[in-house]
Amino acid sequence: MTASIEAKGAAAGLPPVHVIGTGLIGASVGLALRAVDVDVTLADQSETSVALARDLGAGRITGDIAPGLVVIAAPPDVAPRLILEALQSWPEAVVTDVTSVKQAVLADLVRSGVPLDRYVGSHPMAGRERSGAISARADLFEGRAWVLCPHEHTDGRATDLVGRLARATGAAVSTLSPHDHDAAVAAVSHVPQIAASLVAARLEHLSEQAVGLAGQGVRDVTRIAASDPGLWTQILSGNAPAVAAILREVSTDLDRVVAALEALGSGVDDVADAPGARAVLARSIADGNAGHARIPGKHGAPPAAYAVVRVVVDDRPGEIARLLTEIGEEGVNLEDLRLDHGLGLPFGLAEVSVLPTSAGPLTEALQARGWQIQS
Amino acid sequence: MTASIEAKGAAAGLPPVHVIGTGLIGASVGLALRAVDVDVTLADQSETSVALARDLGAGRITGDIAPGLVVIAAPPDVAPRLILEALQSWPEAVVTDVTSVKQAVLADLVRSGVPLDRYVGSHPMAGRERSGAISARADLFEGRAWVLCPHEHTDGRATDLVGRLARATGAAVSTLSPHDHDAAVAAVSHVPQIAASLVAARLEHLSEQAVGLAGQGVRDVTRIAASDPGLWTQILSGNAPAVAAILREVSTDLDRVVAALEALGSGVDDVADAPGARAVLARSIADGNAGHARIPGKHGAPPAAYAVVRVVVDDRPGEIARLLTEIGEEGVNLEDLRLDHGLGLPFGLAEVSVLPTSAGPLTEALQARGWQIQS
Repeated sequence: MTASIEAKGAAAGLPPVHVIGTGLIGASVGLALRAVDVDVTLADQSETSVALARDLGAGRITGDIAPGLVVIAAPPDVAPRLILEALQSWPEAVVTDVTSVKQAVLADLVRSGVPLDRYVGSHPMAGRERSGAISARADLFEGRAWVLCPHEHTDGRATDLVGRLARATGAAVSTLSPHDHDAAVAAVSHVPQIAASLVAARLEHLSEQAVGLAGQGVRDVTRIAASDPGLWTQILSGNAPAVAAILREVSTDLDRVVAALEALGSGVDDVADAPGARAVLARSIADGNAGHARIPGKHGAPPAAYAVVRVVVDDRPGEIARLLTEIGEEGVNLEDLRLDHGLGLPFGLAEVSVLPTSAGPLTEALQARGWQIQS
Repeated sequence: MTASIEAKGAAAGLPPVHVIGTGLIGASVGLALRAVDVDVTLADQSETSVALARDLGAGRITGDIAPGLVVIAAPPDVAPRLILEALQSWPEAVVTDVTSVKQAVLADLVRSGVPLDRYVGSHPMAGRERSGAISARADLFEGRAWVLCPHEHTDGRATDLVGRLARATGAAVSTLSPHDHDAAVAAVSHVPQIAASLVAARLEHLSEQAVGLAGQGVRDVTRIAASDPGLWTQILSGNAPAVAAILREVSTDLDRVVAALEALGSGVDDVADAPGARAVLARSIADGNAGHARIPGKHGAPPAAYAVVRVVVDDRPGEIARLLTEIGEEGVNLEDLRLDHGLGLPFGLAEVSVLPTSAGPLTEALQARGWQIQS
């Protein structure tokens, strides 16, 4: 936690911060800033909500304020109006908003004709299943990305100040244009959600035996299909153009795969048939390889190809712990761990990811300790 | 491992087994059966391959055999011919194949006009990244599903015998018609692979900052996008009609989502616009919820809603082990564990899944032991 504490130390010099909108995100911003002794004032259209946030320790309520930084933590449909009011009310203050949509909010602001040098949009990529101040946490942003989205008129000092705010909450700051932000979250969050949901929907009417064949692959692909429909309708609506743009490309690729499969038909021995169809399938998988390789590994480092050691583990309390204790005793750092439960059997496989150079020695050491390795 | 040993005990009465095709699967069948003292003979079109399998301990090579059960472990394009030859060569023997395609192979056999009462197709759902006898393992099928696919002419005794063979290798046996098998693996394996690859392909040309926003969701959805293009071209080609049928449904759903997003446009405040578009989005996510809920939980039991306890863990050897040791000391059984590494920070979150009744006591116990819980 060293880096986090150092980052928070930089918060000492933050000016008074005024948070407008004391739901989950706004109240969490207040709690996080209060934890590093920043002066925070709170406002909300709901008197109950703002009083609750104050009672939870997210900041003060007073009409007599001169904030250096205003955080608008309101839904996208009211954020532009609140941003404009804040720019007018406090002519020296920097103003940011934390909505997950950046282009649409900026477009509304630009249409107003107001100078926007003191405005910089941002997006802390943190959330919870529950909403409201009652769910707020001082550590909500800890280790999460907080994206700054300066536009062409933003003053560099405004961007710097919002970056310091984000780091004060423990977040890792990155910078993207509003367009690139919307395209990025569409690609890394919104499109994967749609894909997971559409694949999962095809499982609904399978027989018990058929879904019983589900392995780790489909479990991973569809895990986020358990997400809340109401929340995701808001998210997808707010970023509709960027999501639609990528989904149209996915749709084109998908239609090409379907056409190739239809050309192949059902013959098992007509390899000469359907010229080009197999190349379409191979290209689709290879393009996926190339895209997958772009996802950064641990700590934002280039992706590492970890080696996986598969260990048979009895299904009773403490067995996984005993395994990992012994891995720790061997001085090997665990990069990831997956549990793959057998079908109808009282044991499972622990898939232990380690650096490739550790895999051989670890396998030998675990076998010497009596573990059954499935390599 | 109790159940596995009991299941293997039933193997004692298996007749001599002849394995034709000594690649990864065939040689692994031989090794698994030899481990429980079944008499195994081997054949392959390659003398080198069959000699290697023999040297590894997968069985004997002899021309003088009278097998009770013949296993055809050859690719789909040669399997039908080998099955017909085996039915003719050994008029008392039961014959099975282990290809991942069941309808196309059966269709070829039916066209031959040969009686098929002694034939039952099957599919052990196990594989490795590497191929050939050299990669074979006696425990390849341990805890994996092995699907039996009897057709309308299959004699019940043939199905019973192949089921005993499968259990002797440690596999969990289930039964599906050839049509239902092909549809099931299309839905739970082949379609998720296509979806993962198409979503991952959209990441290829993103900027470094954009892919830096990737969280656990997109990592899960695209994990299997790292799969081998050559292998998957074979798999998808072999089950083309079943995969195409489901992908056409996915395509229809996708087009509906794209149309809804296009109707919503880019406005942030025109909630009255695009009647019905938000309902399409919400319905797509809700249908995914329903399908996701069909995936069985641990041990094939009905899916359980596990509670997740999020623990901040320093990134150094032994910390995860210490955490899990202490969870074991509290007598709590770990249902799953995910490591969510922070962006650019030297610690991560361990997401510990436990039964809901254990979450509260575990959270308190871990806090008392000094762990930082992020709930």
